[in-house]
Parts: sequence; C-alpha cells; structure tokens
Amino acid sequence: MGCGAGGATAAQFARKTDRKANITILEKDSYPQYSKCGLPYAISGEIPSFKDLIEFSEEWFKKSRIDLKLKTEVKQIDYSNRVVKAENEEESFEKNFDSLIIATGAQPFIPPIENIKPEGNLVDGVFPVRTIDDAKNIAAYMENTKKVTVVGAGLIGLEMADCLYKKEMDVTIVEALPDILPNYLEKDMSSYVYKKIPDDIKIFTNSIVSKVETEDDKLSHIILEDKDEDVDKKIETEIMVIATGNKPNTYLAEKIGCKVGDTGGIKVNSKSETSLEDVYAVGDCTEYQDFITQKPILVGLGSIAVRQGIAAGVNAAGGKYQLPSGALQTSTSEFFNVEISSVGSSPKSLEENNVTAKFSGSSLPEYFPGGKPVNIKIKVDEETETISSAQIVGKNAALRVNTYACAVLNQTKIDKFRKMETAYAPPIAPTLDPLTLVCDIANMKLKRKKRRKT
Amino acid sequence: MGCGAGGATAAQFARKTDRKANITILEKDSYPQYSKCGLPYAISGEIPSFKDLIEFSEEWFKKSRIDLKLKTEVKQIDYSNRVVKAENEEESFEKNFDSLIIATGAQPFIPPIENIKPEGNLVDGVFPVRTIDDAKNIAAYMENTKKVTVVGAGLIGLEMADCLYKKEMDVTIVEALPDILPNYLEKDMSSYVYKKIPDDIKIFTNSIVSKVETEDDKLSHIILEDKDEDVDKKIETEIMVIATGNKPNTYLAEKIGCKVGDTGGIKVNSKSETSLEDVYAVGDCTEYQDFITQKPILVGLGSIAVRQGIAAGVNAAGGKYQLPSGALQTSTSEFFNVEISSVGSSPKSLEENNVTAKFSGSSLPEYFPGGKPVNIKIKVDEETETISSAQIVGKNAALRVNTYACAVLNQTKIDKFRKMETAYAPPIAPTLDPLTLVCDIANMKLKRKKRRKT
Repeated sequence: MGCGAGGATAAQFARKTDRKANITILEKDSYPQYSKCGLPYAISGEIPSFKDLIEFSEEWFKKSRIDLKLKTEVKQIDYSNRVVKAENEEESFEKNFDSLIIATGAQPFIPPIENIKPEGNLVDGVFPVRTIDDAKNIAAYMENTKKVTVVGAGLIGLEMADCLYKKEMDVTIVEALPDILPNYLEKDMSSYVYKKIPDDIKIFTNSIVSKVETEDDKLSHIILEDKDEDVDKKIETEIMVIATGNKPNTYLAEKIGCKVGDTGGIKVNSKSETSLEDVYAVGDCTEYQDFITQKPILVGLGSIAVRQGIAAGVNAAGGKYQLPSGALQTSTSEFFNVEISSVGSSPKSLEENNVTAKFSGSSLPEYFPGGKPVNIKIKVDEETETISSAQIVGKNAALRVNTYACAVLNQTKIDKFRKMETAYAPPIAPTLDPLTLVCDIANMKLKRKKRRKT
Repeated sequence: MGCGAGGATAAQFARKTDRKANITILEKDSYPQYSKCGLPYAISGEIPSFKDLIEFSEEWFKKSRIDLKLKTEVKQIDYSNRVVKAENEEESFEKNFDSLIIATGAQPFIPPIENIKPEGNLVDGVFPVRTIDDAKNIAAYMENTKKVTVVGAGLIGLEMADCLYKKEMDVTIVEALPDILPNYLEKDMSSYVYKKIPDDIKIFTNSIVSKVETEDDKLSHIILEDKDEDVDKKIETEIMVIATGNKPNTYLAEKIGCKVGDTGGIKVNSKSETSLEDVYAVGDCTEYQDFITQKPILVGLGSIAVRQGIAAGVNAAGGKYQLPSGALQTSTSEFFNVEISSVGSSPKSLEENNVTAKFSGSSLPEYFPGGKPVNIKIKVDEETETISSAQIVGKNAALRVNTYACAVLNQTKIDKFRKMETAYAPPIAPTLDPLTLVCDIANMKLKRKKRRKT
C-alpha cells in the first residue's frame, strides 16, 4: 500500500528476497515512485522535467514482476482474513495477502487560516508542496504571477524559497517561530543561513498568516499577524506555498488496530514490523525512535523511509533484516549557497547533561586560497562521553556529517574520535579538520566539568 | 630537533601543556615551520607566494616563548648527560634537556642514475622536491625552460606533474613500476586517474631514467630504460624533478641507541616515545604501525606527523596523550581534476582472507543533473568482518574516506556500517550513498564465502 520511496523500495527488496512471491502495490496517485525531495528542483528547472523525478518507472515494475496498480485506493483492510479491499476507476476488488506493507505516507498539515478550508479545495493560488501534482500546479501558476509567500521556514520551506527566488519570483517567507529552521538548527547555527538569504527576500519570523484575501476568486493578499506587534500587516501575494510539515496517514492502519504512537505515526520496530503480525509499515506514516535517546520520532526523511523499505521488503518476503535500534536522522539540505546538515537527536530533545562545543574553521588549510567556512556545533553526553547531536553549516556539510553519523552509530567516545586521522591535502582539507577540532573543545569542556564535580 | 609539521606541533602542544617549560627548537633550515605538502601549489601559483606556506612564523614562536634557532644543526646528542651539542654560523653551544623530541624528517631518495651523484650536487636542472628551497629552485629554473620530466608517479610525482602542466610546461612522467600510484591504489582504481591525464603528457611506466646528459653543464636529455623493451629512449628534458620517495633521517637517533625498525624509521609507540626514556620522535623520521595489521609502516603523512607531534608535545611536557594503537593512514590528493583517497592498510600488505568489493556510482541521485563519478573499492577481513582498506577515486573522495576512517577506528562490522543512514538531498548526495552501497556488495560476498565454507 503506497508507492513512495518506502513502499517502492520494500517491493523491490521483497522481489530480491523471494523471486517467486506475488507482489502488488496499490497506489492512489497516478505516478509510479518519484522523488518527493526533488520537487523544488523541478520547479526551479535544475531538474529539467517533472518526469525526471520518476525513479522506478512502470516498466521497471513490470520487469520486476511487481503488479503496480496506480490510481487505486485501498478502502478497507480485513486483517483477520488477510484481505485488502480496493477500488479504482475500473473496478472494486479484493486482494489476499500473507504480508502487508503500509506505506501510506503523510499529507500536508495546513495551519488554520481564515478563508482556507484545510480539507482540500484550497483557494486558487494556495498550494501545499507534497506531490508531483502540487509542484506542477505551482509551476503552472507561477507563469503569470510574480509575488509568492512561503509559509514555514523549515527545510522544505527554505528549499522552495530558494528555488522560487532562482525563478526570479518576489519571495516572502513567513515562520511562526522566532527563528528559521526552528526544528533543525539552534539559533546560533541557523543565523549563518539567515545571513545568506538575499536582502530582497522578506522574512517574517514569529509571524503567522491569519487570513487570505482574494480578488476574482484568486489569492491577492495575506494578512500577517506578528506575535510581538499589535498591528497586522497586509501583503500582496499571488501564490502562497504552505510548507508547515506533514501529518502521517494512519487511518487504515489504526482501523485494524496497529498501534499509533504519541507523535501520530504507526509504531514500528527495527524490522519495520507494526504491532500486528504480518503487517509492516515504512516511511512518513511511521513512528520510530531516536538512536541515542530512544525517544519516539516521527519518520520524515526519505533516507529513513528507504532503509525501512529494505527491512520491510526483506522481512515480509521471508528474509531477515534488522535496522539499527533507532534512527540517526542524518540529513542535509542546501539553499542560498549554503549547505547544512545534522545528525543525532534534536538538540531540543536532549537532557541537560550534555556539553556543547562549537568551532568555526575553514574547509582548506589557511595558506591555501579559496577555503570556505565550516561551522560545527556538537553536543556530547557527559555520562557516555559520546556525541548526541551534531549540526554543520558550511562547505561539504553533508559529507562531513556522515563521519559523525558513523561515530554516533558506534557510540565512539569523544576522546577516541578527536584523535582520528582525517584526510589532508592542501587543495582539499586542512591537516586537522574542523570535524575533530570541535571535538577537542568538547573533550576539554567535558574534562573540566568532571574535575569540578569531583 | 626539527621544525617541520611534527616538531613545530610538538613545541606548540608542549607550551599548551606547561606554560613555564623552557622550549627550544633547533632547525637546520632557514625557515620556520612551513607546509611541505603545499610546495607543488606554490610552484603552480595556486598558492600565490612561497612565504604563504609558512604556518608558524618566527613571531608566533616568540609570542609562544619558544626559542626557535634556525640554521642550527645538531651535531651530537649526549644522551646520558641529557645534552644536545649544536652549532650555527655564530656559535657552537650545548643545550640541556629533560625531554628530547626528534623531528629530523627525511631526505629525498635519489635513485641510481648515471651522471648524478646521489649526495647533493645534482646536475643543474635536476631537483628533488622536499624543501621550500627545492621548490623555489624549480620555479626559478622553469622561467627559461619548457620540457620537464617527473620521475615517480606516486602522490607527489603526480601533484608536481599536474602543477607543472598548469604552468604550461611540456610534461613527461616516468614510473619504474608497471602502474601509476603503485603504492597507493590498485591498478583498476589508478586507471581512473590514468584516463584523466591529458594526452599531451607522456607517461612511461615500467621505465627508469638510467642516465642524464648535459649541454653546457645543464640537463639536456634523459635516457629511459623500458623494462619490456631492448632499445633505450633518449628524451629531451631541461628539468627533471625526482619524486621517488624519502629516506628517514635517523643518524643522530641511532647513534644514541634509539631503536630503528625494518622500514628504516625510528620506532615509536602511541605516546610518540622512542625506545629511550625521555626521548620522543615524530613525523617522517619515525616508524609506527598500521592500525589494522599492526605491521610496521614508515610514517610519511603530514596528518600523522601532526598527531604524533601533539602526543610528543603533551607527553614531553608532563601531560598524558595517547594516539590510537596504529595509524589509519587516511590520505587524499587531487590531480588532473580527479580526487583520490585511501584509508587503512595498503592492499598489498593484506593477507588473503579479505573479500574485495567495488562499486561505481554517482555523487548525486540519478535524476539530478551534474552528478560526478564516485568509484570505491574496499577490502573486508573475513574473520573480523571489518574494513581493512578503502580506496576512492572521484567526487569528494577525501570527505567520503573520513567516514571509512571512523569505521576502521571503531572496527565496525560491515553489516552494521552498510545500514548507516547517510545524508541525502537531491542536489548533494543520493539516498543511498556509494559509501554504503559498496558495503552491501562486500557483505553479500562475505556471506556467500562463509556459506561455502560451512
């Protein structure tokens, strides 16, 4: 059920595991698996065409003998009889299963805004950005418009803002919380990104869109409520893109009794099993746990969905596959010519017993021209002396964070990690990389704090 | 003794550890610490001036209250009385020590070539490339010449060849072994580099320069002996740069009884201690061991020298600092627009009980334009199921190899590492990075081999 990154990967790995299994994918949408993460870049034109986003074509599924039924909605699951009831334009039908993989994804969360009905039928000019159709609609609507507001300054909001700016739109960004990237970077780190946002993009933090106004049934203005100010602002806007997060689609799973966690996602374990035998779930509809804190997290990253898909596909087809006992949440993005990344627990979720270290260095040795800033902030658990969280803003943030991911996965002591030899060559990286230099600082702070305690 | 990367770092960390210690550096050369690795780029002009290579200036040493004596040669060490005897143009003097750090580096190995005397006084136009003066001499000599031959197709040889080519010299490369980068990459991996070397650079592998000829006392021709052919080649050459490796300078250390290993380097442990109490050694004059095989290796990387310097400096000044129980040998370089890197044991030193996996992928998701090749080859120990060696050729080879360095340091099982979440975003990296995809292949091979055995 579902042909997103998680569902399609599950089908692929089920096929790899059992060459004879009957595998069916039921997908509501009319496209085979495509990259949701790529949508902003198809709007900007960096990815030349929307059809390039398709990673597994209908042909691919055919070749793999996977029965992909598009535009097909699952209406009900009869768990005790292991039957799924579905329908499409042509037929209503039932499908027996031995194993069921739920990959129903999520739908955009639409905040309460006057004149907008959260359940579909948004005002003309107001778009979520979740599906290929959303993105196509935005691209089409842009052709005769200029003024756009992006609601939400998280990863997807800023990716969209950057891509729209590249298309020479007049961009306004609205964020309800006091800082951009509020759930991703701490303020001192996100401020490096803030500074790189061009001056002609207007940013309103601590603000919400309370109302939209229309002219000829089309979006014309938004009303901004600043939490710190008494007077509302009225801003001319032809397009409003809503990027304020997602709600997992759990309706069908809940109905058959799959346990749903406090985050709203279907609870799964490291084998991608739900609380019901023979039922697996993967991707944005699931709740997994943070690797370090073991606290529940809503899965919202394609990279986790794909890995859950591998586990579910292998296990559902009779193989054995177990993921690490929690998600590292390694992630990255790039906008306004600055790369950011993060791994480990969200800094906000961490207990007090962490020391924080920060280092700002260069991607190259001082003597080599062209070095770019690399800013790193890490948190180290005082008891285990291992990294709980790392945030990077700057050159090659993504590839640098992978090395921290490996340290987190191994629960490497900071005193061991800081002595690690990193690759050095004048045109490529400094003798001592910011990666380990920030750990020297953390190690010193840790020692100092322990000395004070004894 | 010695103000290279290792020696200068040792002095710096001795000062950090003990603010009152008397610290003296005795250095034969006339420059304070500079980057040897940067020399090719100062010749090419990518680093604008030779003086930019200086990382710790004389002023810096003064401020740190470190007595740096340049152009000063140590003549003898009286170990039992803890006295060093040295001299420079002005004086001969003795210096007492509590701790002695030997950082005497290495000197270029000059292969036997007719008409060249290996001990200094090379023919006009023939240069090693070890010191800032060597590099300055090359740069000066280049001004009126065009035809250059680089002897040795190791890292430094190819860095030099690329830098000379950028200066529009006619470049010839001669390598005694059958392949370029013979001690660094296996043939299938080095062939990716070979293909990128421009067609107008002549490469002679399996060949040695047997003789040089002069005109007006200046180099004019070299005679090439190809091991596979009977007839020698005579090639017009105005400059010959010799990059065929180094010999550690151990004379003084050996004289006082420091143990020297089979590789020719002074034996040191993870505290940078030699076999003699109170005597430390760091950098290119030392022998350490490979982290995985525990076999002795000659230290030839600045990145190891600096880390040994930290250990020696801290320990010599009364602190405590211990390196990992062997060198990871993480390293990288870039030439002809291709980046290469490596970590772990040299593939040649590995026992038979390793499986090999190779993967060629892209730095970006397939659907995102502009992805660059990433070629990875790893070896995994069948018994421990951990990575013994990794070689990378392609995009961000250096930063990718750091992640393997962390896996090697932690002796991470391949089945654990391959499931690691890597950072993913369409313009930055694919959902599943080549980093882990190659490990899937290794894991499969490992399993298959074990199944066959049982």
